[in-house]
Amino acid sequence: MSEKATILVQLDTDAQPSVFDRVVAVDAGVQHLFSYGGVSPQTVMPLVHGCIFTRGGKDLARTAIFIGGSDVTAGEAVLSEVKKHLIPQYGLSVSVMLDSNGSNTTAAAAVRAAGRHLDLSSAKSLVLGGTGPVGQRVARLLAKVGGHVRIGSRQKDRAEAVCAVIRAHIPGANIEAVSVSSSTDGPQALGDRNLVVAAGALGVVMLPKKLWTTAKALRVAIDLNGVPPAGIEGIELNDKGVERDGVISYGALGIGGTKMKVHKAAINKLFETNNAVLDIEEIYALALHLQ
Amino acid sequence: MSEKATILVQLDTDAQPSVFDRVVAVDAGVQHLFSYGGVSPQTVMPLVHGCIFTRGGKDLARTAIFIGGSDVTAGEAVLSEVKKHLIPQYGLSVSVMLDSNGSNTTAAAAVRAAGRHLDLSSAKSLVLGGTGPVGQRVARLLAKVGGHVRIGSRQKDRAEAVCAVIRAHIPGANIEAVSVSSSTDGPQALGDRNLVVAAGALGVVMLPKKLWTTAKALRVAIDLNGVPPAGIEGIELNDKGVERDGVISYGALGIGGTKMKVHKAAINKLFETNNAVLDIEEIYALALHLQ
Amino acid sequence: MSEKATILVQLDTDAQPSVFDRVVAVDAGVQHLFSYGGVSPQTVMPLVHGCIFTRGGKDLARTAIFIGGSDVTAGEAVLSEVKKHLIPQYGLSVSVMLDSNGSNTTAAAAVRAAGRHLDLSSAKSLVLGGTGPVGQRVARLLAKVGGHVRIGSRQKDRAEAVCAVIRAHIPGANIEAVSVSSSTDGPQALGDRNLVVAAGALGVVMLPKKLWTTAKALRVAIDLNGVPPAGIEGIELNDKGVERDGVISYGALGIGGTKMKVHKAAINKLFETNNAVLDIEEIYALALHLQ
Repeated sequence: MSEKATILVQLDTDAQPSVFDRVVAVDAGVQHLFSYGGVSPQTVMPLVHGCIFTRGGKDLARTAIFIGGSDVTAGEAVLSEVKKHLIPQYGLSVSVMLDSNGSNTTAAAAVRAAGRHLDLSSAKSLVLGGTGPVGQRVARLLAKVGGHVRIGSRQKDRAEAVCAVIRAHIPGANIEAVSVSSSTDGPQALGDRNLVVAAGALGVVMLPKKLWTTAKALRVAIDLNGVPPAGIEGIELNDKGVERDGVISYGALGIGGTKMKVHKAAINKLFETNNAVLDIEEIYALALHLQ
Repeated sequence: MSEKATILVQLDTDAQPSVFDRVVAVDAGVQHLFSYGGVSPQTVMPLVHGCIFTRGGKDLARTAIFIGGSDVTAGEAVLSEVKKHLIPQYGLSVSVMLDSNGSNTTAAAAVRAAGRHLDLSSAKSLVLGGTGPVGQRVARLLAKVGGHVRIGSRQKDRAEAVCAVIRAHIPGANIEAVSVSSSTDGPQALGDRNLVVAAGALGVVMLPKKLWTTAKALRVAIDLNGVPPAGIEGIELNDKGVERDGVISYGALGIGGTKMKVHKAAINKLFETNNAVLDIEEIYALALHLQ
Repeated sequence: MSEKATILVQLDTDAQPSVFDRVVAVDAGVQHLFSYGGVSPQTVMPLVHGCIFTRGGKDLARTAIFIGGSDVTAGEAVLSEVKKHLIPQYGLSVSVMLDSNGSNTTAAAAVRAAGRHLDLSSAKSLVLGGTGPVGQRVARLLAKVGGHVRIGSRQKDRAEAVCAVIRAHIPGANIEAVSVSSSTDGPQALGDRNLVVAAGALGVVMLPKKLWTTAKALRVAIDLNGVPPAGIEGIELNDKGVERDGVISYGALGIGGTKMKVHKAAINKLFETNNAVLDIEEIYALALHLQ
C-alpha cells in the first residue's frame, strides 16, 4: 500500500481553533487537518488515543499533534497531558509540537534575527510585553543563551512571576523584572540595553520614538506587533534589518517571514518520526539551522 | 513555489456550521475548508487576522471568507465586523461573501428566474414568508429593480419592519406590508399580482391551489420550500418553468439548480481577488451573467 | 463533469468528534470529512438536509453520514432521527453508518474471530463489561447466532437492562445477566463457558490469569482493552489467535487489525449507493465476507 496521508491534529485551548495555525499547516503541506477548539487536559485522552491506536508501525509518523491557542500556560498543560497518554514503550506514540499563540516560532525567529547582529551571550536585552505568550519565550531563549534580560510589564508582579518560571527552566538565569507603567520607567528600563523586543498587546504603543532613538547602547529593535500602530513607534511592519536612526529594526512582517519558515519546518519535522516533542528549545535549534 | 491551495473560512452564526454550505464549497472546488460554528462579532477578530497575516501578496487571494447561518441579521453583523479587521490600506485583505441561509444565492436565482418571464421593473409581486432570510432578499431585489412589492407575513408588524430595512437600503422603494393570517387575507394580497414567491418555513402550505389558480393577473409562481408539502400547493419540487393552470411555476429544486450555479460561481469569484465583498447586489449581478 | 469528491459527514454525540473515527475515514480514502461534535437528535435535521439537498441523482451516493461517539444509546437516537429526515420517496437520501465507540466494527471483528475457532450456534459465552458500547453489541451478535450468552457486569441490574434490550431485538435470545462484583462471582460466571470476551473500561483487570487458565471448558479468550493493563490478565495487546495455556487468545490490537478492515470496508460501502443503513447486523455480514 502507498504511503498514508499526513494528518495533523490541532489541539487549541481557545474556543475557536486558530485560523492562523490552520493556514500555516495547509501551507506546510499537511494533507488532513483535524482542528479542535476548547481543548483542556480533561479532554485530551481520547484525542491522543485516536492518534496512537489507528495506524501502526512507521505509519504512526504520518499522524502528529499541534498544540496552540492564545494561552501558553494552558498549552503547556495540554502538552503535559498529551505526553501522559502516549505509550512509547509499546511504540504507540506520535510527534507533538507546542506553539501557543505562535509563541515558540515567533520567539525563535525574533531571537535568531537578533543573533545576526549581536553576540547574544553577552548582550543586554529588554523584552516589553514580556509576560505575554511570545514575550515569555523570547526572554527564556535570551536568558538561555546567557545575556542579561529585563522583562518589562506594566504590572511588575506579573513580570516577577515570569522570571520565576524562567529560572525554574534555566537555573541561574541572568534575568530581572522591571516596571514600565510610568513615563520615567521607559528610559530607565531601556538605559544600557543593546536589544529591545516589543511583544505586547495589539494596538498599544510601548516605546515612543524619541525614547529609543536616544538610547545610546541600543543596536537592535524588534517589534512583533502585527497590527498598526507599531509597538515601537517608527518601526514599519515590513522592516527587516533596515537601519533607522542608527538602530537595526525589524517589524512583525519582517520577522514573520522567518517565523513562517520556522513554523512550517517544525510541522514537517513532526512527520519525520513518531516521537519528537517540539517545544521552545527544539524549535529554536531548528530556526538556527534554516537557510 | 507552485500556487497555494485555496482555503475558504466558513463563519457560521449557528452552533453547527451548515453542511449545505460545506458541500457546495467542496463542489465549487475549494481545496481546504475551515468551518466555524457559533460565530458572533465578538469572536471574529482572530479569525480574520488568521486570514490576512498568513499569506502574502497575490497568495492572499487564495484565502477567502464565507459567512453563513440561519439568521441574516446575525450574518450581516458578522460581515460588518469582518470588514473592520481587514487592513486593505496595507494590502492585508481577503474576499468575503455573505449568504446566510442561502438567502443571497437563492434570492438571486429566484429573481433571475422570474425576470425571464416578466418585466420586473413594472411587475407586481407578492413575497410570502417575506420576513424570513430568503424572502427579505427576494423582496429587496424586486424592490430595487423597480416593481411594486408586497411582503406577506402572518405577523404584519414583522413585515413592516422588513419594509423599513429595505427602504433604508433603497430609498423610495415601492413596497408594502400585508397580513396573510386569515383566510380572506390571501385572495386580497394576491389580487393584482403578476408574481408570487413563497419563501416560508418548512412544512407550511402558504397558498392553497384554488387561490392561485383563480388569481387573474398571476403569471409566475415560485415556491422555495424544499421539503414537501410545497409552500404553494400544486407546485412540484422539480418544476422549472412548466405551466400549471396558465401559471409558469418553479419549485425549490427547479430554482435550486440555478442557486447552486450562482453559489459556486460566487465562491469561485472570491478567489479572483483579495478584496471582493459579495452581498445581495453583487451576487444578483453575478447570477444575471451566468449561462 | 467528472465524479464528485466523496464527503463523509461525521455526527458524533460527544463534545469532541472522535479522532479515531476521523483517522479511519481518511485511511478509508474519504476525500472530505465534515466533523460535528455534540450532535443530538435536536440538531440533526439541518445536517441531514445539507446532505440531501446539495447533490443530485447518482452524486448523492458520494455523500454519506457516519454516526459515532462514546454512547451507543445516544448514537442510536441520532440514527433514528437521521432516518426521519431522509426523503427516499423523492430519491433524497444518503447512506448512513452507526459505529458509536467503534462498537459495531469491533464487535463484528471480535465475533468473527471467535467464529473461526468455535461453532457459535452452540457455544457458551461470557461477555465481561457487557453493558458497555462494544460489549452490548458482542452479546447481541452472539445471541443472534444462537449460542448461550452471559452478560457480566459489576452492577447486575445494568446487565439485566442490556438483556432486555437484546431480547427486544432478538425474541427468544438465549441470554442471562450475571454479577461479577465479588471474588467468587468470576469462577461461577466463567464455569462452563467456551468463550470469554472482555470489553470493559480502560485500565481495569477483569479476569485474573489464575481464573481463566483453570476454566476447563474455555477455548477462546478475547480482550478488547487497548491500553495496558489487559482486561484479561496474561493476554498481550498483539495476540492474534496464539495459544496461551490451552486457550486461543486475542488482544485488542490482534482484533484491531480486523476491526480496521471492517471499519474501512463499511465506509467504502456507504459510497456504493445512497440508501444503505449500516448497523450491527449489516456490518457483521460485511465482516464475514472480508478476506
